[in-house]
Amino acid sequence: MKTGDKLTIGLFGFGVVGQGIYEVLQQSLSLNANIKKICIKEPGKKREAPADLFTTDYEELLSDPEINVIVELINDAGEAFKIVSTALKNGKAVVTANKKMVAEHIAELLQLQEQYDTPFLYEAAVCGSIPIIRNLEEYYDNDLLKSICGIVNGSTNYILTKMIDEQMPYPKALEKAQFLGFAETDPSLDVLGIDAVNKLTILIAHAYGVVTHPQRLLHVGIDRLNPFDAKTAEEKDFVIKLIAQAIKLTNGKIAAFVLPHYIDKSSQLYAVKDEFNGVVIQSSLADKQFLYGKGAGRYPTASAVLSDISALRYAYRYEYHKLNTHAEITDDFYLRIYCSFEKITQIDLKDFEWVEEFHSQEVRQYLIGVIQFKKLIASNWFNKKIISVIVCPDGVIEEIDTRKVKKLSHLLAGSHFVEKTSETLSNLTKELSGI
Amino acid sequence: MKTGDKLTIGLFGFGVVGQGIYEVLQQSLSLNANIKKICIKEPGKKREAPADLFTTDYEELLSDPEINVIVELINDAGEAFKIVSTALKNGKAVVTANKKMVAEHIAELLQLQEQYDTPFLYEAAVCGSIPIIRNLEEYYDNDLLKSICGIVNGSTNYILTKMIDEQMPYPKALEKAQFLGFAETDPSLDVLGIDAVNKLTILIAHAYGVVTHPQRLLHVGIDRLNPFDAKTAEEKDFVIKLIAQAIKLTNGKIAAFVLPHYIDKSSQLYAVKDEFNGVVIQSSLADKQFLYGKGAGRYPTASAVLSDISALRYAYRYEYHKLNTHAEITDDFYLRIYCSFEKITQIDLKDFEWVEEFHSQEVRQYLIGVIQFKKLIASNWFNKKIISVIVCPDGVIEEIDTRKVKKLSHLLAGSHFVEKTSETLSNLTKELSGI
Repeated sequence: MKTGDKLTIGLFGFGVVGQGIYEVLQQSLSLNANIKKICIKEPGKKREAPADLFTTDYEELLSDPEINVIVELINDAGEAFKIVSTALKNGKAVVTANKKMVAEHIAELLQLQEQYDTPFLYEAAVCGSIPIIRNLEEYYDNDLLKSICGIVNGSTNYILTKMIDEQMPYPKALEKAQFLGFAETDPSLDVLGIDAVNKLTILIAHAYGVVTHPQRLLHVGIDRLNPFDAKTAEEKDFVIKLIAQAIKLTNGKIAAFVLPHYIDKSSQLYAVKDEFNGVVIQSSLADKQFLYGKGAGRYPTASAVLSDISALRYAYRYEYHKLNTHAEITDDFYLRIYCSFEKITQIDLKDFEWVEEFHSQEVRQYLIGVIQFKKLIASNWFNKKIISVIVCPDGVIEEIDTRKVKKLSHLLAGSHFVEKTSETLSNLTKELSGI
Repeated sequence: MKTGDKLTIGLFGFGVVGQGIYEVLQQSLSLNANIKKICIKEPGKKREAPADLFTTDYEELLSDPEINVIVELINDAGEAFKIVSTALKNGKAVVTANKKMVAEHIAELLQLQEQYDTPFLYEAAVCGSIPIIRNLEEYYDNDLLKSICGIVNGSTNYILTKMIDEQMPYPKALEKAQFLGFAETDPSLDVLGIDAVNKLTILIAHAYGVVTHPQRLLHVGIDRLNPFDAKTAEEKDFVIKLIAQAIKLTNGKIAAFVLPHYIDKSSQLYAVKDEFNGVVIQSSLADKQFLYGKGAGRYPTASAVLSDISALRYAYRYEYHKLNTHAEITDDFYLRIYCSFEKITQIDLKDFEWVEEFHSQEVRQYLIGVIQFKKLIASNWFNKKIISVIVCPDGVIEEIDTRKVKKLSHLLAGSHFVEKTSETLSNLTKELSGI
């Protein structure tokens, strides 16, 4: 693909985004791009485009020498990877919006791009219309990124907004998100944080040159959040957001995870509501930057796909400059977390370095404390459905002051417990003084 | 300049940004760029770089065939234009942060780029570290931009934040901004809105392909704002921001101006405080996008300049695609404005289509009404120092409902005037019923 080549597109998938692209390309004549063939799964459906455009045969697109761009917009990540890898091998430029496919195969896809010297763009895969990958690639390329911290999943953000702003219970908020088309019928990719961790996997490749698999990164979704957590957020003037975060520690290693976070008013992410996405980039030169926009939907996604198609006109491709820095993921840091449970015995207090707050009510209890990240994920209580964990504002701590450990038993002993838990407390206090 | 060429830089100016660039380039070895010579005005000063790097002779940089990039960072816009135009004529790529120079010479600079086929980049000229030009150029290139609306001047935003959040009077806020280095010693470029309108001139070239002179665009700064206006903002839960705005009307023409605006909580600009900048881009596909970051200062500006230098490695240049659309500026639209004065007789009510609110206190009065933009700028009261004009949220109106005009006299007659002005009112009401 050279600058100035006419773009002849083979499109896979004709769902909402595919239709959006088709529609927009009809109107964007200046782009010098046209769709020659569209590959779909079910041939029978009535579609808003001439019937002779459609085929169910991959090869009609992948083996057509005239088609120089494959735009892949199907749901099935496995099939998508087959299509994309064949296209790259056949020397066709590829544009995709499939975050799951890109995240799970990023290492292979990097190799294919290098081996076949073919552009592969996927701006629409992360934060829809927000040009985050392009800006990380090009604009912050020479700046030292300290952290990248974002709301990257629109459906969970919609649900959390309803839970916090309207005190709507989680199942009802989820139902409403599904009704409005923000969440999938099977919403588990969204609410379990899988979609967010896929996007984080892609982001850290461009931000830090870390090539990893989404399974390597911790992800906790919003399914275990309790109405009590939302109430606590309100009391503390926080909101709850599902955050995908990557931070470069002073030792050069990267802390990266997806967890619910308490966000305070000082953060630009506080005001990111409903289905919107937002990303804060902290760098040593540009300082704090914030990008905000629609993360999903027919036209925002089409807009990003279109920008990628447009960039192919001047043979644009990702350079992945940071791969040479050999940065790696670490679990060796601390988190300040809020943790709520029915009874404090449901967690293991000894896992914490110290506890700064403890609160107990009839309905539920919580504590705020500092814990080693690796202890948290290794603990036997962290994955219990009954426990909810939320990272506190500025919750990533590189090093701790061990003198603070002493505070633990003192704080718990001084708390105002309801009658019911006083026995638990007394046992706890005994146990804690042994730390 | 071809992809992969080594960048040998001639730097004009060694102020805070110039020093920042020098410092950063020393650390960014991967960029394959080095500064060969630095041209400065005063040879005697002690500087944090080897003495043999410095010269006072333009020609040592502009005529050196080895230097293929000129980075221009001097204050004097006239001198800067001489340097930049000579550099382009000599086939050297140019990077500048000089908004005044770019805005005032944009037509000539476009011609020089075309004639000499040389890249000319100026991301740092608008919103410092926010990659707004690059994103308008590349990313929103194929999307239909409805509007672009931004806080583009950090010093005025700092002053307004102090005035609203801390009820600090304007002169004290200005003094503090100067003390912190956000405002120039001669702050008139900032506070009169000249800096903002320079940036707007640059933005509309990339957003809409409109090439004009800043003098063609209305700009009002913040120097005429009254503490009373800040109090009104507080009562209405608004903040005051100096906004550079361009809107594509349904007739395809562009409304563009710099005016103080009341901003409500629903806008992303509401939370842009202190010296930060923010731009909301509304487009038909991507919908609402918001970019936020530091608009000025040594390192944020250096970051933007560095990104431009870095982009020269792959022969990046602005394409100004939208120039072909022949969009033009119009003054034919309406504004909903808040207007405050000592006495209502200081303005001419007949200029308004209608008035929606009228408020009178001993200290000052205000009205909120709808006025034709061209009547506003042609009026004899608009430029009086004693009058302050602030655009209301969503204040640009394309067409009006003339039935509303009737409301005018009714509203004024119903207002609760203080004793003093009742006579004025009575005259007014008489006058108004004649409209």
